[in-house]
Amino acid sequence: MTHQPPIAGIFVPNMVPLDDRGQIHDSELRRYIDWLIAKGVHGLYPNGSTSEFVRFTPEERRRIIEITVEQAAGRVPVLAGAAEANVKETLATCEYYHSLGVRAVAIVSPIYYRLSPDNIYAYFAEIASRTPVDVTVYNMPMLTSPIDVPTVVRLAEEFPKIIAIKDSSGDISQMMRLISTIRPRRPDFAFLTGWDTALVPMLMLGCDGGTNASAGVVPEITRALYDAARQGRWDDARRWQYRVLQYVDALFYAADFPEGFRIGAAARGFHMGQSRQPLSPRQTDSLSHLAHTIETLLREDGFESEREPSLVAGDTAATTSDRAVVQRVVQEVLQVLTTRQS
Amino acid sequence: MTHQPPIAGIFVPNMVPLDDRGQIHDSELRRYIDWLIAKGVHGLYPNGSTSEFVRFTPEERRRIIEITVEQAAGRVPVLAGAAEANVKETLATCEYYHSLGVRAVAIVSPIYYRLSPDNIYAYFAEIASRTPVDVTVYNMPMLTSPIDVPTVVRLAEEFPKIIAIKDSSGDISQMMRLISTIRPRRPDFAFLTGWDTALVPMLMLGCDGGTNASAGVVPEITRALYDAARQGRWDDARRWQYRVLQYVDALFYAADFPEGFRIGAAARGFHMGQSRQPLSPRQTDSLSHLAHTIETLLREDGFESEREPSLVAGDTAATTSDRAVVQRVVQEVLQVLTTRQS
Amino acid sequence: MTHQPPIAGIFVPNMVPLDDRGQIHDSELRRYIDWLIAKGVHGLYPNGSTSEFVRFTPEERRRIIEITVEQAAGRVPVLAGAAEANVKETLATCEYYHSLGVRAVAIVSPIYYRLSPDNIYAYFAEIASRTPVDVTVYNMPMLTSPIDVPTVVRLAEEFPKIIAIKDSSGDISQMMRLISTIRPRRPDFAFLTGWDTALVPMLMLGCDGGTNASAGVVPEITRALYDAARQGRWDDARRWQYRVLQYVDALFYAADFPEGFRIGAAARGFHMGQSRQPLSPRQTDSLSHLAHTIETLLREDGFESEREPSLVAGDTAATTSDRAVVQRVVQEVLQVLTTRQS
Amino acid sequence: MTHQPPIAGIFVPNMVPLDDRGQIHDSELRRYIDWLIAKGVHGLYPNGSTSEFVRFTPEERRRIIEITVEQAAGRVPVLAGAAEANVKETLATCEYYHSLGVRAVAIVSPIYYRLSPDNIYAYFAEIASRTPVDVTVYNMPMLTSPIDVPTVVRLAEEFPKIIAIKDSSGDISQMMRLISTIRPRRPDFAFLTGWDTALVPMLMLGCDGGTNASAGVVPEITRALYDAARQGRWDDARRWQYRVLQYVDALFYAADFPEGFRIGAAARGFHMGQSRQPLSPRQTDSLSHLAHTIETLLREDGFESEREPSLVAGDTAATTSDRAVVQRVVQEVLQVLTTRQS
Repeated sequence: MTHQPPIAGIFVPNMVPLDDRGQIHDSELRRYIDWLIAKGVHGLYPNGSTSEFVRFTPEERRRIIEITVEQAAGRVPVLAGAAEANVKETLATCEYYHSLGVRAVAIVSPIYYRLSPDNIYAYFAEIASRTPVDVTVYNMPMLTSPIDVPTVVRLAEEFPKIIAIKDSSGDISQMMRLISTIRPRRPDFAFLTGWDTALVPMLMLGCDGGTNASAGVVPEITRALYDAARQGRWDDARRWQYRVLQYVDALFYAADFPEGFRIGAAARGFHMGQSRQPLSPRQTDSLSHLAHTIETLLREDGFESEREPSLVAGDTAATTSDRAVVQRVVQEVLQVLTTRQS
Repeated sequence: MTHQPPIAGIFVPNMVPLDDRGQIHDSELRRYIDWLIAKGVHGLYPNGSTSEFVRFTPEERRRIIEITVEQAAGRVPVLAGAAEANVKETLATCEYYHSLGVRAVAIVSPIYYRLSPDNIYAYFAEIASRTPVDVTVYNMPMLTSPIDVPTVVRLAEEFPKIIAIKDSSGDISQMMRLISTIRPRRPDFAFLTGWDTALVPMLMLGCDGGTNASAGVVPEITRALYDAARQGRWDDARRWQYRVLQYVDALFYAADFPEGFRIGAAARGFHMGQSRQPLSPRQTDSLSHLAHTIETLLREDGFESEREPSLVAGDTAATTSDRAVVQRVVQEVLQVLTTRQS
Repeated sequence: MTHQPPIAGIFVPNMVPLDDRGQIHDSELRRYIDWLIAKGVHGLYPNGSTSEFVRFTPEERRRIIEITVEQAAGRVPVLAGAAEANVKETLATCEYYHSLGVRAVAIVSPIYYRLSPDNIYAYFAEIASRTPVDVTVYNMPMLTSPIDVPTVVRLAEEFPKIIAIKDSSGDISQMMRLISTIRPRRPDFAFLTGWDTALVPMLMLGCDGGTNASAGVVPEITRALYDAARQGRWDDARRWQYRVLQYVDALFYAADFPEGFRIGAAARGFHMGQSRQPLSPRQTDSLSHLAHTIETLLREDGFESEREPSLVAGDTAATTSDRAVVQRVVQEVLQVLTTRQS
Repeated sequence: MTHQPPIAGIFVPNMVPLDDRGQIHDSELRRYIDWLIAKGVHGLYPNGSTSEFVRFTPEERRRIIEITVEQAAGRVPVLAGAAEANVKETLATCEYYHSLGVRAVAIVSPIYYRLSPDNIYAYFAEIASRTPVDVTVYNMPMLTSPIDVPTVVRLAEEFPKIIAIKDSSGDISQMMRLISTIRPRRPDFAFLTGWDTALVPMLMLGCDGGTNASAGVVPEITRALYDAARQGRWDDARRWQYRVLQYVDALFYAADFPEGFRIGAAARGFHMGQSRQPLSPRQTDSLSHLAHTIETLLREDGFESEREPSLVAGDTAATTSDRAVVQRVVQEVLQVLTTRQS
């Protein structure tokens, strides 16, 4: 058995374009994946909360992973959401995703019911002792039973197959407790945050990366933020963090999560299709407004829509000029900040 | 088109016995259904929260309804939980359950994500305008997005196919607001509560019945409570309500819901099998203790286990003597209450 | 030592009229108290949440009790809110109120901080072991640390000076747990609810009465509801409960609690004065609208404003005609309810 | 009118030592204040949540400010908690504290009741338009009504007397929203965090300082953290942040807040006296254990108790050696972190 390096960097919870019949839009999903990789994401994270895993059938979820792994073609690792109706189904899915070649799976605590910590432990323990594939424990306390620090610590200590925590609580103290307790004993264990608006602080405090919805809309910015933080350019990192907040606030509050992020991807030029969750007229209005807001933000940041696939080719050249534009836009904030600290 | 009478009475969220391989135990489920009907439930409510619908696959959920409808064989109506991954899947399920002959379906608001009221409206509106079968809107705010009063009122006014609300909030004021607003305009609309420990107050204030987990363990008591309330025997009703509280507290707090109710059914003599949710040693201990508690309560109430199927035949005769026993047990409470009021 | 009868009936959390300088309006408070007693409340409950105890200084709180006890003049018992900054201050206040002749004090769990159950126990234990006056434990979980069932049970068992629980959680199951556990051991212990919209169910399940904000605005209705419930006229009780819901919804949601109740008292003809909590223009508008709503409801119920003190004399005669009017108003609801149950 | 510089740095919510009779211990409070100033805090923040303002009488609160201002004697600014029972009392207190010479007051949103945003605005607007002293708006959503971003922005725009926000929500995104919206229009406005375990991230993202309970126990560490962050020594800052987390977790979870912090100050050698909140035996045990934990942490960090006042003289010399010790203790964590990033 060869050891793989710890998971690190920006994993994008890639959303699923739908066709006119509301089905998975195979070719557009592939185009979207290519674009995300070209823009610099370190990994793909299909079947996450942002990618609406609960709105697809078990068969569709499998199909999404098949397409993602096939299209990634080894260019970047795939972290596959694998939560199914029960342990047996989840394990069968782990086995299948392992056979496809995913780097690891991510499993959220069982949805719907509220479980106590020791039953959450029992759930992950049963999976971890039988899975053939590395497991990332996924804490999403706003949408399902929270996984507390002692439970993650215990799982990390007892099960080598559990190799990471993806924490979407946004709680910096909780992340520090996890890092300070687990890292000394499991230096291979990775700490990922799903909370884009605290990504720089999380990286500064020792996180290895994140699974970040913003990367599905502005992968250039999430990546630039990550690079700045990794290289210790904290002034740059801070500027990107404020910009990510602007995007995420726009994407998050325009409509019930995660619909805003689908609109954001559409603003980048992808055919995302109608939502599987019917929307009220009010939210449809709000989303049209969001599309405009996002396009304005993107223009300010010098980003182009990818509506013409032929343009994708020139992608990498864009990086430098992108940065120049963004730097100009956010420098007023920087000026004030700098003035205050001197 | 012939109109059906409003839904009323005690609908039991019948749980699903599992065999040694963890699969649906067909014959035991049928025996359980026969027993519940013999004990006097007014209807069956498979694929509800107590019956762990999210821990079964879509195919299993369909199988559960097939068995339930077939075994009920028209003796009592079936209210079938029909929530699936998205509107399209839910509608296909509604059609199938309609073809099987269910009285109505019950649909909870979409799970996992938190939806705003107008998107919850949009969801039910799309289903209600296309379903062939009557729909009960199911409000379960502790486990998924709440459905507020204005949304239920609007749905009731606009969609004849929506014929009931099943409210498991336990909020008496909310139920009164629903009844006082909807009933004058939709006299055919039914109000059901899923909150067993407030069942008598809910009936007194105008509810038509309930979907009550206690009826899956002590259907005799839930039925007796209902009959007392319907006949205006409020002293009797109050005594039963206190007794239901004792059962429900024991069943609810021994382990993460709904495992205690499965143990309760096992205490009545049904082979429920291992839970699909792995349990910690602590909860397994707690459940053994619960089994003992429930058996003690059942003995106090004069109830027998149904471990020997041959005994089921004599069922109906039990009703009268059951009552005598329970009355004796709870009369201390009554005495104090009566003394206080004189 | 002579034992006093348990606390029972409707205690009104009488609000405090303010004069043009924002100070306690002595004569109007006395007129209000006289009116409340004439309308049939069983007791007065000054310095409660509805009477804004935290917006008065410690000296003002003492003055309010002095006026209330003096004006009540033994006609009805006084339950005096006595929570102060710490145990020492609270005990000094208990002693003073005892010297004034209050029936008992009501003490809420310490405000602001969140205390764990065993420290809440320690707090009440220290007070209960040193107070000269009977104590009502006041559970108000929406505004301060909740007092759980085991804590109330333990306090009731250990301290004879603790003679009642006033529970404003609105949780019927919690009340049943308290009654079924404490009453067999402490038959003198009283159970009061502060949740007006569940008052009939609470009384049916064994409560002794309530401290009810609605009684500060429509004491006639709260009293009629209580009488109907006590006499087992449950159809009448139910009708009054629906009517109380209408009033309370109007009073509660028009502005931040408890301002709506002050406007309600003003609609009955009392000079309540400007709120000590500054109001936004939006809430001021909403309160004007509320005044109109309350006046409409009062007219429907045949109630007069008390703006002309000379009219107060004819008060008691009103009771019979009041009932006739209300009965007419709510009888549509009754008709539907009766039809459904036959 | 001369403008004062914006509030910045570490303000310590200095606690109040009590004597054997439970009264304010004048001389020990003065000794504590001297020690805090000697250890490097930038300001004093009496009558805050950590200093238990609600457990003192209005007169005692005034006495605490008198002593604090007198003892500080201009060496550091004083930010005085000034929330009283209502606007009139709060304004009178503002005037008094202004006459004493405090730098500013801090006012939390009204306690106990839950107020809507526009009434919170109305409350602060009335105070801000009439106060003679600068006001810091204090957001403490865990203990009283939250003050949302639009309300703070509106207050900052309209009232020059409002010169800072002290936010104890711990929400980094909320702080970023405040900074990015208010700072461009009010460069003099200060942003303080009360969330010690996110202090480094908050400073990195632009906060001016904090009111930090840890500074009441280990002012040396809170100050060192602040200096490291201000000077851009982020590796040092991160190490201190992890150490602060250890202290705060010990201080916060040993007993109901803020009792642990009082024990922490006692471990530094101050006679804090018995808590005004009675403690259960369990919590008393837990606090003895905490005292031991804190003493161990302090020894690891090379800190001495101040039990012998004569030792205080050598204080400033300690700073350098302190740092050496702490650096050794936390360097394992650093090593791992550094390894991971290379």
